[in-house]
Amino acid sequence: MTDYGRVYNFSAGPSMLPVPVLEKVRDDLLNYQGTGESVMEMSHRSSEFVQIYNDAVQNLRDLLNIPDNYKVLFLQGGGTLQFSMVPMNLMTENHKADYIVSGSWAKKAAKEAVKFGDAKVIASSEDTVFDHIPEFTADDIRPDADYVYVCWNNTIYGSHFNKYPDVGDKLLVADMSSSILSEEIDVSKFGLIYAGAQKNVAPAGVTIVIIREDLIGKAPEDTPVYLNYKTHADKDSMYNTPPCFALYVAGEVFKYIKSIGGVKAMHEIDVRKAGKLYDYLDSTDFYKTPVKKEDRSLMNVVFVTGDKDLDKKFVAEAKENGIININGHRSIGGMRASIYNAMPEEGVDHLIEFMKKFEQENR
Amino acid sequence: MTDYGRVYNFSAGPSMLPVPVLEKVRDDLLNYQGTGESVMEMSHRSSEFVQIYNDAVQNLRDLLNIPDNYKVLFLQGGGTLQFSMVPMNLMTENHKADYIVSGSWAKKAAKEAVKFGDAKVIASSEDTVFDHIPEFTADDIRPDADYVYVCWNNTIYGSHFNKYPDVGDKLLVADMSSSILSEEIDVSKFGLIYAGAQKNVAPAGVTIVIIREDLIGKAPEDTPVYLNYKTHADKDSMYNTPPCFALYVAGEVFKYIKSIGGVKAMHEIDVRKAGKLYDYLDSTDFYKTPVKKEDRSLMNVVFVTGDKDLDKKFVAEAKENGIININGHRSIGGMRASIYNAMPEEGVDHLIEFMKKFEQENR
Repeated sequence: MTDYGRVYNFSAGPSMLPVPVLEKVRDDLLNYQGTGESVMEMSHRSSEFVQIYNDAVQNLRDLLNIPDNYKVLFLQGGGTLQFSMVPMNLMTENHKADYIVSGSWAKKAAKEAVKFGDAKVIASSEDTVFDHIPEFTADDIRPDADYVYVCWNNTIYGSHFNKYPDVGDKLLVADMSSSILSEEIDVSKFGLIYAGAQKNVAPAGVTIVIIREDLIGKAPEDTPVYLNYKTHADKDSMYNTPPCFALYVAGEVFKYIKSIGGVKAMHEIDVRKAGKLYDYLDSTDFYKTPVKKEDRSLMNVVFVTGDKDLDKKFVAEAKENGIININGHRSIGGMRASIYNAMPEEGVDHLIEFMKKFEQENR
Repeated sequence: MTDYGRVYNFSAGPSMLPVPVLEKVRDDLLNYQGTGESVMEMSHRSSEFVQIYNDAVQNLRDLLNIPDNYKVLFLQGGGTLQFSMVPMNLMTENHKADYIVSGSWAKKAAKEAVKFGDAKVIASSEDTVFDHIPEFTADDIRPDADYVYVCWNNTIYGSHFNKYPDVGDKLLVADMSSSILSEEIDVSKFGLIYAGAQKNVAPAGVTIVIIREDLIGKAPEDTPVYLNYKTHADKDSMYNTPPCFALYVAGEVFKYIKSIGGVKAMHEIDVRKAGKLYDYLDSTDFYKTPVKKEDRSLMNVVFVTGDKDLDKKFVAEAKENGIININGHRSIGGMRASIYNAMPEEGVDHLIEFMKKFEQENR
């Protein structure tokens, strides 16, 4: 299909990485930049690795225009560990937090938070199978809630917060795992943003946390040491050995995005890619996409034929055509095209051609 | 020095990986075994990755002769997360646990455990700067302790449990981060073994946990979901996205060790490498090694000249000779040669030659 006999991988994560990044990683695999070591073998205390780390932090700051009063951390444990860390660190004033449930991951986060205090779902779109972002206003938030939690992009259902919610003076916490670096965001509107890296950033195993500095140090003394943001903030993510290699690849992806013009340029490409796919979906009644138009995700495009057997046939034939992992999440079936930053535009074109052909043959 | 202009990296971790493994990873970096994807990009739910995972588990089972009633898990968060997970999951019967403090990491583990119950240090060698494994017998263990905790190999101080401690009928928990796969062990003597991978196994970011099945499910309901062993055991380490790439490299290291004859053969090489170095250290009074002879580690060989400025000179000149990260841990200074499985014997020979030359020039 592409160079190196690569396929178009529409996986929801882990997912594609930019070929120039993979080439660089390959070329430096046994000897990184003349150091005589692989990054996989490098002491995290060495000046070489500290440079890799510092560059990654600075480049992410530049890309997202992160204000100075926010710390950037690189942690392990994925979004799942953040489901616990967020309430353990931030639901510590009034022990209340309000959750917006726009999909399965937000639901899981809310369920986990109940262990640590009075976590309440104040808006949900579950009754319509998460086909939209639930509406809510600042009035729906409990006056003494310590924070409001949202999942910015819903990987499974293909929806996305296309405007900033009104949370009044409340702290907003967002899981941006499947949208980070695909759009410019105003970090100052959030108290904490986190993102598992395995969609737009790096191989699985590293999680980005962007936290406003005044929110660090609010966890009780008996919090497990790894789960206290202060542990990591005080030591610039080097309290213990960080996932160095995943962090290095993340840094290379940051450099790559900078090289093509930053997040603004990346977003334009993402808008064009998703636009092509949604335009085609809107032009036919053979495929249906359940998501409310104004809440559509640029990253995860969900669609069905309406016939489960036909969906299965689609997935199987797609694979024969170099289109892999186009199946929907195992909990809902159907199809999902995850077209993250690293999916080339040709991949989307190739998918649309295949979809047209499949429609002609199976209408 | 070696092929690819590589240096001899004596880092305590992350540390060297076998060159044949690095070559394989490099060759497959953009297209793993004809799948058209990098392992970094592979869905953890794909049949290709599940195969990588299953092979890694089976090969580790074979290498360590792990009994059927033990589960193998691959987790994130390093040893630091295990410091919390062990007591949160196992100090749940009588809420008491006894710790053997043979070095800084065991001390940290004990300190963390105090958050979750009555964790008591019943033996320590701290008063002699951890120059030996503290002695204790089954009589020193509290009758109602839920487990006894040891650090099997002390990376910073260069000591190692060279015999199984007598813990009577008590559960033994061991941190084997810096010795795993360097020696045959009788897994059945332990309730739980864990090991951060970044020394003998893989790049940082994955932790091996070997747990007896009857110990799974003892954590309270309100344990953070990621910190409950049951979460991971029930889903074969795929409850959430595992650190796929680090796990894949671990799997390749397992295959490599099998190919050279397994842990027995690896151990023979390790004994020979460490033997050469200790023999030389014992033959001179220019360098001193503080560790009690019968407790010496095969993995971390600690030595000093007795003169701090001379130690610094040693470290600097060693670097000019392709010997890097030979400095001792920042908490104690001096020198430490970490000669893990992947350090070639030529690296040890090269180090000894350098040590002799340095001795001649600075005596």
